[in-house]
Order: sequence, then C-alpha cells, then structure tokens
Amino acid sequence: MKNLDRRKFLKKTSLSAAAVSLLPAGLQAYGERPFQSRYMGDFAAPKLEHVRAAFIGVGARGGTHLKFLASLENTEVVAICDLYEDLVKQKVGWVRDVAGKKRHKNIAEYFGDENQWKKMLDEVKPDVVFIATNWMNHAPMAIEAMEKGAHAFVEVPLAVTLSEMWDIVDTSERTQKHCMMMENVNYGRDELMFLNMCRQGAIGEILHGEAAYIHELRGQMEEQKRGTGSWRTYHYAKRNGNLYPTHGLGPVAQYMNLGRTDDNFGSLVSFSTPAVGRIAYAKKKYPADHKWNQLDYLGGDLNTSIIKTHLGKTVMVQWDETSPRPYSRLNLIQGTQGTLAGFPTRVALEGGVEGVTKDHHSWVEGDKLAVLYEKYDHPLYKRLNETTKGSGHGGMDGIMMYRIVECLQKGLPLDQNVYEGCFWSAVAPLSERSVASGGAPQPFPDFTRGNWNSTKPLAIVS
Amino acid sequence: MKNLDRRKFLKKTSLSAAAVSLLPAGLQAYGERPFQSRYMGDFAAPKLEHVRAAFIGVGARGGTHLKFLASLENTEVVAICDLYEDLVKQKVGWVRDVAGKKRHKNIAEYFGDENQWKKMLDEVKPDVVFIATNWMNHAPMAIEAMEKGAHAFVEVPLAVTLSEMWDIVDTSERTQKHCMMMENVNYGRDELMFLNMCRQGAIGEILHGEAAYIHELRGQMEEQKRGTGSWRTYHYAKRNGNLYPTHGLGPVAQYMNLGRTDDNFGSLVSFSTPAVGRIAYAKKKYPADHKWNQLDYLGGDLNTSIIKTHLGKTVMVQWDETSPRPYSRLNLIQGTQGTLAGFPTRVALEGGVEGVTKDHHSWVEGDKLAVLYEKYDHPLYKRLNETTKGSGHGGMDGIMMYRIVECLQKGLPLDQNVYEGCFWSAVAPLSERSVASGGAPQPFPDFTRGNWNSTKPLAIVS
Repeated sequence: MKNLDRRKFLKKTSLSAAAVSLLPAGLQAYGERPFQSRYMGDFAAPKLEHVRAAFIGVGARGGTHLKFLASLENTEVVAICDLYEDLVKQKVGWVRDVAGKKRHKNIAEYFGDENQWKKMLDEVKPDVVFIATNWMNHAPMAIEAMEKGAHAFVEVPLAVTLSEMWDIVDTSERTQKHCMMMENVNYGRDELMFLNMCRQGAIGEILHGEAAYIHELRGQMEEQKRGTGSWRTYHYAKRNGNLYPTHGLGPVAQYMNLGRTDDNFGSLVSFSTPAVGRIAYAKKKYPADHKWNQLDYLGGDLNTSIIKTHLGKTVMVQWDETSPRPYSRLNLIQGTQGTLAGFPTRVALEGGVEGVTKDHHSWVEGDKLAVLYEKYDHPLYKRLNETTKGSGHGGMDGIMMYRIVECLQKGLPLDQNVYEGCFWSAVAPLSERSVASGGAPQPFPDFTRGNWNSTKPLAIVS
Repeated sequence: MKNLDRRKFLKKTSLSAAAVSLLPAGLQAYGERPFQSRYMGDFAAPKLEHVRAAFIGVGARGGTHLKFLASLENTEVVAICDLYEDLVKQKVGWVRDVAGKKRHKNIAEYFGDENQWKKMLDEVKPDVVFIATNWMNHAPMAIEAMEKGAHAFVEVPLAVTLSEMWDIVDTSERTQKHCMMMENVNYGRDELMFLNMCRQGAIGEILHGEAAYIHELRGQMEEQKRGTGSWRTYHYAKRNGNLYPTHGLGPVAQYMNLGRTDDNFGSLVSFSTPAVGRIAYAKKKYPADHKWNQLDYLGGDLNTSIIKTHLGKTVMVQWDETSPRPYSRLNLIQGTQGTLAGFPTRVALEGGVEGVTKDHHSWVEGDKLAVLYEKYDHPLYKRLNETTKGSGHGGMDGIMMYRIVECLQKGLPLDQNVYEGCFWSAVAPLSERSVASGGAPQPFPDFTRGNWNSTKPLAIVS
C-alpha cells in the first residue's frame, strides 16, 4: 500500500493509525462497504412460500439436514449432489420415505466429479442450498450459491480463513442473499433455556462466558469407505489453534449479544499445549509406513483462548478433539446475579432457586432442574419439541431446520446472520495467529463494518 | 541503566536482547546471583530437633497454625504477637488447652502497636516465625525474620509485588533461611492423590492444568471488630487482575513440576471482566456516604489468565471473589492418558477405571471414586489422616503443619521452596500487567536464575 493510499484508507476507517499498524495485512483491506451493497444484520429476504432446496454433500451430516427439510410442508427437494452415486440414490430414497411419493417428485441427481455442484446450481437454480462438505469447500460453494441467486446454508465452520469470511460477507451484502452458518447447538434445549434466562435477566448483568468443544475424535483418523472426517487430520496436523470453536461459542455469543446491539467481539489471546496425542495414537494404531505416521503434527492437543469483548466482558474458549476425556461444551454463562453451566447442567442464582436452594453457594442440578425447565424452557422449544422428537442431537437439528424454513417462508430475519457465522468461525484463524505469536492479542475484524450496534438481539420467538 | 552496563548485563544473562527489550523495567535488574548467596531449590537447613516458634498475627488464620504447631512434639511456642491484646491472651489459652501446662511454658506476649513484631524478633530470637498478617506486611516481615536468623512461614500470597518477591529470594539465598509460603491446599486429600497419580503416570504425559479461586466473599467487606478481611476491599478496588491465585495454582504447579527439573513458568496472558459486583453490593448493603460507596472499583469481578510453560504446556487460572456462584478451585490436570478434575472430584482414564468405567468417555465420581482412593491415596495422607482429623480444611492444615515441623526436625527440604511461593504469587502482578496492556503476554521472572532444572520434583513421601 502506498503512503498516500494508506492515509486515505486511515481517513476512511475508524481505526487509529496505531491500531492499523498492529493488524496483519489481510485485515487492513476493508474500509467502507462497497457501492450497492447493504448491511445484512437484520436482513429479511422476500417470502419464499414454496422453498426449493438443493443439497451439496449428503453424507452423515448433509443427510440429516435433507431428511428434516424434506419432512416440512411447502418444501421441495429439487436436487441432490455428492461425489458418490450411491449416497445420492440412498438419499433420494430417504426423501421418499419421509414425505411420500406426492412431494419432491423431480429430484435432480448430481454425482461423479468435483464440479457437479456448479452444474447443479446452473441447471436447477434452487432457492436455497445446503452445504455439508469438507471445510475447504464451504466458502467457495457458499459464495457461488449466492452468486447464482440462492440463499446458502453452510455447515460449521462457515469458512477457514479471514479472507474467505470477508468474501462471504461481501458476496452476501452485494447479492442480498442469506448466508447462514448452521450452528445447531444454539437450538439445544439447555442452550435455548439459558438464552431465555439471560434475556429475562435471571442472572443479572452478563460478564463472562465459557465455551468448548472437548470431544475425543481420534477415531476420525480411521479411513472410512468415503474418507468422511479423516481429511480433518491434515488440519489438526498442520494448524495450531482452536480449529472448531463454533459449537461451544455460538450459544454463548448469543447469550451475550455479541455482534448485536450493545457488544461485539474485541480481541483474542490463545495458547495451545504441545502436540502429543495424535502422534501417539497414530503410532499405536497404524504401521510405521502409514500416512498418519509420516505427518509432522503441529496442532496442540488442547487450545485455550480468551476473548475480550468491546464492553470488556470475557469468553474462555477451549478445543480438544484428541485427549481421552469426557465430552463437554462447557456452556457457561455468568452474570452478576447467577451462573448457568453445562456438562452437567447446573444453575446457581443469587438468593437461591425457590424450593430447591437457599442461596448461590450450591448448584441446582439433575432432577432438581425440573422447576427451572418449567419456568424457563424457551417457547420455541415448547412449541417444537413434540414435532421434532426423535431427531438427531436431542431435537436441536430438527428445531434448527424448522426455524430456517419458517423464517424463509414468512420472510423473517434468520436466527443467525452472516456476521455471526464469521465472528464465531474467526476464532480459528485468530487463535492460530495468537498461538504463532506467543499469545499476542489479535483484534477481531469487524465484519459488520461498524453496523453491529444497529442489529437487534436475537428475539425470544414462540 | 547506562548502555555499557546494559551490554554487560546482557552478556551475563541468558536473556536475548529482544527478550529483554520486552521486559518491564523491574524485571531487568536481576542478573547473576549475588556473591556468597546460594540457590535454595533443594535447600535443607540443619536439623532443628526442638522447634522454637513465634507467631505474628493470630486472628482466624494464624490461630489455626498456632494450634496445630502447639500440638506437635518437640515444638515450643516462644512468642505470640498481634495488634490486639485479647487475641494474644486468647491464643496463649489455646496453646495451654492443646498441649497442657508442661510445654510452652514461657510464651512472650507482644501487642499494642505496629512495631511489636520487630521487638519480638530481636528479643526472642525464634527458630521459626509464622506470619499471618495482611498481604502488605508479608514481605517485610518475612525478610526481617530471615535477617534475624529465623525461617519464615508466610500466609498466601507470599508477597504483593515482583520486587518484593525478588527481595525475598535474595534474602533467603543470602541468609540461607527457608521462606515457605504456606499453600495449605497442596495438602488436601484430592490434591495429594492427584499428585500421586501424576507421579505414577496414571494420566500419561501431562499437558494442561486448570486452577481457580472462585469463592464469593463479598461479605468480607463488612467491617468486623478487628477489620479482618475488609482491608482486602482496597486491593479489589484498586488492582485489576488475579489477586489471589495460589490456592488453585499451587497444587496444579506441583502436578506439573513447574519450577523443578523439567519445566517452569513461561509467560502469562490475562483478561478481567468489568467491575460490577462490588459496586452493586456496596450500594445495596451500605448507606450512600459509606466508605465502600466512595471507592472507584477498578478490579474486574472475574479474571481469566492462561500460563504457557517453558515446555509449552498450559495452565488456565481464574479468580472471582465477587460473583454469586458456588465455590471452586477447578483443580484440573489433563494428560495424554486421562484427566483428573475437582468440584466435584472426577476422574477419566484412557481404557476406563477397572470395575467402574469402560473407557474415558465418562467420569468416575461420587461413591465410585472409592476404588481410586484405595489405589492412589497419597501415603502421607494415609499416615497422617488419623492424627489430623478434625483439623480445619478437611485435614489439609494439620497435615501441612505436621510436614513443616517434620522437615525442620529431620533437616529435610520443605515441600514448597521459596521460588514456588514466588512463582505462584507472581500471577497477581503479572496478570495486572497483562490486563493493563490489553492482554499482552508477560514473561515470568525466573526467580531461580536458571537453576530450576537442578531441583528435584516434590517426592511422594510416606
């Protein structure tokens, strides 16, 4: 950047010269919103009374989305795309099973090579596209889908690099298409209840959250028939940070209204442990000449980061898919009047919980939580629990898909906007940068370009 | 520092120029160990078969130490000092109750003004001095005690500033007197068992720890007859960081051998939440013109820090004495073969715990822990549990005092050396610096001047 351009840039943005000098090059290129683009914070698309949906990637995860969508009224599965023919055929069968023969009559099938999804977008022109492919394909597929006139719904993380995230934001703002990262955990019963409690002021002023994805998944290194999951090993070997932050962080970020109204992501510090577990696992499980024994594993087994928000609040975020320990997303939210926590679910409130605890010195947990579910279960959960029972993930996947379709059909803003997907996913590249620089704080890019405080908090809909 | 001196200093130390330039001024002044001083890592003082002990500060905490010491054979309480006469008289009575009239016959009593402790040191010349006064007096009293020929035993934290910590190290090394910070939690049953499990390799290679002091103590703001505890309010109002790290960190640091043999404290990043809880509490509990409503509260309610060790391992440390939530010290230690955690006590091991769990996906907790206590209870706990039953803090205070006296009488190294007291306490000023600089990493001073790797890990004594 020439000096003159740089001065112009500084004038255009709200960043001080000092702040800019600390930013990596990739973060300095974003000043004003491009001409004819619009802020998408509370964006509501025109009503889609009949939702024509296409699917890219219908393995374990994409298949779940497909099944839930297919079961909803006024939807139509118009195309299914996957590398593998048998997966496509199998899923066409599933759709028939779920919805009977009258609906989803013309499902176009695409398979066989890596560019079939582009052909599908061109030929089928779906209203919405669900993307459940490997991480590297998320951004290119979401961007192309929007360019071709479809709303994009993308598995977590939304994208891998900050540059991709900016491209997604810019494309969404220019095309005025939704790009929602499908963070299903935000629709868990406890997560919905905690959100409801936070909104009702049950824990006072919120000060701190904790989020994690602690899930021992070394077994994913095993090559399956179609390699599902094992490709992640290359990420874990080559990248050192929190590579999978959104399941824990998504709900906590919405409890705290980050990126909406009064607060936003500020900066992040991060440290990883040494990389030990996957090396040992590969040695134990595979022969010496196996590809998993040829890799140089750089990614620490456990990563711990702390986010400081615009208002000075904190979020501790952890990630570990390697160490042998029980599953946890932490799911903790602490305020001046109490703390809600997960794994196991626990609640402590100033003054106690009527009929259960006398003060905040002990947790309400187990069966004793019944009084709290009674009082604080999210109205959305109450309404949809019956219809989504038996869905994967304790109902959260079913509720998520119901809400996506409902918002599209009614022309409402989605529950998670494009910026939230970017902020939550950005923890991965930012933690990598912090780890690589000895824990130095990394500023979050403001994907909203200063507009976050115009976006309403996620409403408690019924 | 002149340029020439600075160059000499750089030549003398192992610090690179780049590293030094990042250090705050206070950390740059320590090069070689002074002449005629010695490293105190494994220091064993000459045997003290008869331990003549003096006490400074005999409120709630000092009184406990006094009672436990007085009950042990071959000890003699030679002096008690406190600001308040009635406390001194009361404690003299306690000593008689505990030990009968035959022992501790000549207890010198000092009270009435703030300099009586100096007079006591001069007149009584005790072998050892126990210091349980307010934080600001810890360093001056410990230093003076060593100068007067006594070993110093000091309540937590050992000192408040890094400069005081260096003064304590230098004095201990020059006088060759012990200066032990009395971290009682290291003697808790679970902590001793976890240490034993770590040493036996039960969780494989250790990678990460978590420590906390989450203890709602807003009630300490209440002025008691002698102001015990309420003086802490000034610290909490004026200082922003983790002001009380050692109860959580002490045990975890010994699980990880930090400052001994193979690893040491490296650097620390820290963020605090906004300061909200104490302002609200003062407003609710005290009239508008009360002193607690005149303070400017700067210290965030909850502080979260991450320590990176020399070997790249991590320790997450939290502190919160304000928010209404249940007590926790976290007490988590994670290795490549399992995780041990506290509050409540939980164990997960690769391959499961025989007869209880089949794998690491669920915790062993509650009554099921019996098999682990059976197998891994620390031999010290087994030996002393019976004799210390009924002591404060589930036996930990009794066991600690027993070990202090035992090591002194047998001429053994103490379980906690002067450097450990400094490293653990240093989290307070280092977290303050990191918080004040937007989360920038702060290097730990190496209080051992490069000698930590010559110190043996704490042995599992029986």
